[in-house]
Amino acid sequence: MAERYEDSYLYRLRHSAAHLMAQAVTELYPGAKLSIGPPIENGFYYDIDFPAPIKEEDLTAIEKRMKELSKLDQRIQRMEVSREEAKALILDESIPSMGKDVAEYKLQLLDAIPEGETISFYDQQRTDREGTLHRFLDLCRGPHVDTTKEIKHVKLMSIAGAYWRGDVKNKQLTRIYGTAFESAEDLEQHLHMLEEAKKRDHRVLGRDLGLFMFSPRVGTGLPLWLPKGAILRDILIDFMKKEQLARGYEPVVTPHIGNIKLYEKSGHVITYRDKMFPFMEDEEKETYILKPMNCPFHIEIYASQMRSYRDLPVRYAEFGTVHRYEQSGEVTGILRARGFTQDDAHLFVTPDQLQDEFIGVVDLMKAVLVKLGLTDYRVRVGTKDPSSDKYVGHDDNWVAATKAITDACDKLGLDYEISPGDAAFYGPKLDLMIRDALGREWQMGTVQVDYNLPERFELEYIGEDSKPHRPIMIHRAPFGSLERMIGLLTEQYTGAFPFWLSPVQIMVLPIADRHIEEADKLAARLREVLFDSRALRVTVDHRSETLGKKIRDAQLSKVPYMLILGDRDIENGTVGVRSREEGDLGAMPLEMFLQRV
Amino acid sequence: MAERYEDSYLYRLRHSAAHLMAQAVTELYPGAKLSIGPPIENGFYYDIDFPAPIKEEDLTAIEKRMKELSKLDQRIQRMEVSREEAKALILDESIPSMGKDVAEYKLQLLDAIPEGETISFYDQQRTDREGTLHRFLDLCRGPHVDTTKEIKHVKLMSIAGAYWRGDVKNKQLTRIYGTAFESAEDLEQHLHMLEEAKKRDHRVLGRDLGLFMFSPRVGTGLPLWLPKGAILRDILIDFMKKEQLARGYEPVVTPHIGNIKLYEKSGHVITYRDKMFPFMEDEEKETYILKPMNCPFHIEIYASQMRSYRDLPVRYAEFGTVHRYEQSGEVTGILRARGFTQDDAHLFVTPDQLQDEFIGVVDLMKAVLVKLGLTDYRVRVGTKDPSSDKYVGHDDNWVAATKAITDACDKLGLDYEISPGDAAFYGPKLDLMIRDALGREWQMGTVQVDYNLPERFELEYIGEDSKPHRPIMIHRAPFGSLERMIGLLTEQYTGAFPFWLSPVQIMVLPIADRHIEEADKLAARLREVLFDSRALRVTVDHRSETLGKKIRDAQLSKVPYMLILGDRDIENGTVGVRSREEGDLGAMPLEMFLQRV
Repeated sequence: MAERYEDSYLYRLRHSAAHLMAQAVTELYPGAKLSIGPPIENGFYYDIDFPAPIKEEDLTAIEKRMKELSKLDQRIQRMEVSREEAKALILDESIPSMGKDVAEYKLQLLDAIPEGETISFYDQQRTDREGTLHRFLDLCRGPHVDTTKEIKHVKLMSIAGAYWRGDVKNKQLTRIYGTAFESAEDLEQHLHMLEEAKKRDHRVLGRDLGLFMFSPRVGTGLPLWLPKGAILRDILIDFMKKEQLARGYEPVVTPHIGNIKLYEKSGHVITYRDKMFPFMEDEEKETYILKPMNCPFHIEIYASQMRSYRDLPVRYAEFGTVHRYEQSGEVTGILRARGFTQDDAHLFVTPDQLQDEFIGVVDLMKAVLVKLGLTDYRVRVGTKDPSSDKYVGHDDNWVAATKAITDACDKLGLDYEISPGDAAFYGPKLDLMIRDALGREWQMGTVQVDYNLPERFELEYIGEDSKPHRPIMIHRAPFGSLERMIGLLTEQYTGAFPFWLSPVQIMVLPIADRHIEEADKLAARLREVLFDSRALRVTVDHRSETLGKKIRDAQLSKVPYMLILGDRDIENGTVGVRSREEGDLGAMPLEMFLQRV
Repeated sequence: MAERYEDSYLYRLRHSAAHLMAQAVTELYPGAKLSIGPPIENGFYYDIDFPAPIKEEDLTAIEKRMKELSKLDQRIQRMEVSREEAKALILDESIPSMGKDVAEYKLQLLDAIPEGETISFYDQQRTDREGTLHRFLDLCRGPHVDTTKEIKHVKLMSIAGAYWRGDVKNKQLTRIYGTAFESAEDLEQHLHMLEEAKKRDHRVLGRDLGLFMFSPRVGTGLPLWLPKGAILRDILIDFMKKEQLARGYEPVVTPHIGNIKLYEKSGHVITYRDKMFPFMEDEEKETYILKPMNCPFHIEIYASQMRSYRDLPVRYAEFGTVHRYEQSGEVTGILRARGFTQDDAHLFVTPDQLQDEFIGVVDLMKAVLVKLGLTDYRVRVGTKDPSSDKYVGHDDNWVAATKAITDACDKLGLDYEISPGDAAFYGPKLDLMIRDALGREWQMGTVQVDYNLPERFELEYIGEDSKPHRPIMIHRAPFGSLERMIGLLTEQYTGAFPFWLSPVQIMVLPIADRHIEEADKLAARLREVLFDSRALRVTVDHRSETLGKKIRDAQLSKVPYMLILGDRDIENGTVGVRSREEGDLGAMPLEMFLQRV
């Protein structure tokens, strides 16, 4: 198994880079109070309470000082101390990063260390030419690298606000993000990737291509889908509907809100409260909850009639919009929104059916990824952490469900890795981790086996033995959500969607105004052609612009094909074809073009 | 113009019938306190505070006593009195329906009559054979018929609970519903219609046909759509999408909730608060509102970019789910639900475009009604009540908009009636009143012209004169809502939907188990056939039941066609066709059947 990032040299290096940055800051901004500075996925950050606000431009000076400090080859040493010694160190005015004026957060962190746990500091020291000792000391669990000299390839990225302890009631600190790598090449490649990612940023492309928008009056994380985005959603929904119909799913449509009683029964009121929008409460009315999950509604439908083993599996599918109150700092365009539509379904199965149904679900997910051109993915099977007691349900069920999942993967010839502790509290699951064109990994579709909700709602079916039995539920969402999938696809394709997904597939460009009538006729003829059992999506550029301008604008809109129509084309019964990928393909009869697409 | 119901003899007759019922009640239930008893659409009611609860069975005795009292030919006389005299009458212990023990509600009603307004009682008197005067007196504005003898054809229908003054904080009274007609035939016809309506009740059919369900844990007025109902919705949505695409509408998808700021800007927080679900409020978060209307979201999209007169009309369409907190007594299945999906659209037009766009909308509505087989309708144009000051906007706009609407109707050759005072406060509107198979009238689709929201949101487009102008908005929903339309269609067709709308179009019935394999093959072949550019919806009855039982069940499910498959059919390459409307059509080759459908 690969080394965990948390155990790697790179992780230690970045942690030490965070300290080095803090050292530079305490030198450059006397009075700055340090709080915490951990390594994170692609680098590190440090949250600092500055005496006066700083700007992104100020990062240059901090980075410069870091590089100087790095070269000074300060040894980084661990010291283990008692609680009393720790407090004395934090308040020691003789150490530059310490003293009572800047101790506020460190003292709180010290208090939060449980009794009996080791308390450690990391100390980086140097003696200058005059023989004076310089020192930067920080309360820290570590581990770190041995000397600041190792921190060569470092870059400060950005600043952001961050509440102390993530609590909006606390003071907002300044978070400085940075990154560090082992080699100059690695750093450069990372920065290049970020540049690329910026070009592909779905938030920018989404606006430029007219897919979706946000409005402060509507609210954070609540996208409004513009016409082209609405069409894209529709195409994805249609595609999934057809796949599901062919696989025996039945559609259902359930409300966007539910009485609190429903979520009390499901347990979400307790287990999921943090992620819910405020409840709709009024002393004269019953309390309603904006739905964070579709499952309890599908359960109500299952439970509305007596079920026999002959009726199972029951597969209810819904494009269900759910709302989750993500922290505003975590909201990221449509990749992480507060309102989003899951391609959700719940399967109610007998224990005998579990494995076959699981295979069916994973097979559908594979088909979806192939269709979307997302073929670089890995499979992670989240299982129970044997040392934890947070899980519900009998061990037998866990063993059987985990076996059903791994057997299903084996039968489908899927590589997978087992990730102990990654199960849901109610059952094991399978996640698809997709690697995109930039090598970034995204957790998308998920399949979960659930023994808990059938138990809570006392679901039953009558078995062949004429006795009641409890069904097992499978939760699954191959896209994850429409929003997240469209966000990923936008970045993956830099907005140049495959032909079948393009909101506008063909743009007809009349060379001059006198060709508009023929252009409209051509568009009408094209719209009668079915592609993927939908009418071709064709737009005519009616503006009185030059052909050059029309072509440029069509290119910016990333339309797969332009059909250019002028005198000669009308005379010869041809169209001038420009492909997004292949450029000018010259004039050809319409039939020939249609055969291409 | 036809006489208004409120001015008709029938209205007076029913009002007098309510008094007659109250008289019978006060005789039979001493101590019963009367409150109000008005005529309503199909009859009358009276809200009464009974000393002990009564049951529906008790209505027989009350009705019997009413008929006796009617025959006694009591003269009904109006008396106008001063406030003091009124109070004295209400407290007069010598009059059977009066006296301090039963005066509670009447005294409150008296108090509520504004100073200076005429106070009147209606008095029905008779003298019995012994010469004793009997009298029933009721505080009432009238008018009434002349004698109780006129109230011959009367029927008490049901009882229900009703809060005094409609306020849940007040005491719950018993409401007795009854009806009265001028002739025995009219009454009988009405009762027959009610019987028919009962058979067609969409709530019963919706459950029996597996269209939708309700659950107390989910909440009042919040339907859960079962697979067949979800398919029906989908078919209607697809149909409307195609119609709209052909007419230049663009799809959008907007959130189900919005920040309170949005609805403050639109004014709904003040004008529409009563109908809204409780707000999502939390001291640490911003306040969100469950969307009662889609308009402000479409406006945000319009306002998100600069518009030129060349971009108009802009037509944004959305199947938008909205929530309105109807009183629980008013919720009626899916005809009046608390959550429903409008086939909504908003058109942003220049004044020059208003009439053409209005014609386009009404033309679409007509096309929709024809497709749905709802061709018996009338058009009502709601205009400003010249005597009221509740309307906003310039008179010129009102005149222009009203003319645009009536001219549009004229051009389309639509009969319409003008209904002054039925406009929205922000502009005139057109409503479609559909008459169903039982002669009941339903207000369905609506088109509204709106000058108010563009003003509130300061919407603009740049005109040909390069100056900013304000667009006009048209709101329209041809179905009204999917829920209401499906409710109406269910009652109109008694669940036997037209072929194109049927959730299951063809049921294949293998005669014996050995024919199942061929039946499945037949179904698969049929599913490859497109009808209305959707795959035919075919189900196979796999149960080991007798053919007779299978046919009966298929009949109950109101499927348009059954295809029966046995040895001889397989041998001859035929299917046995049974049509829902025409019964057994005998064996025929599949191709011949397909030509029928």
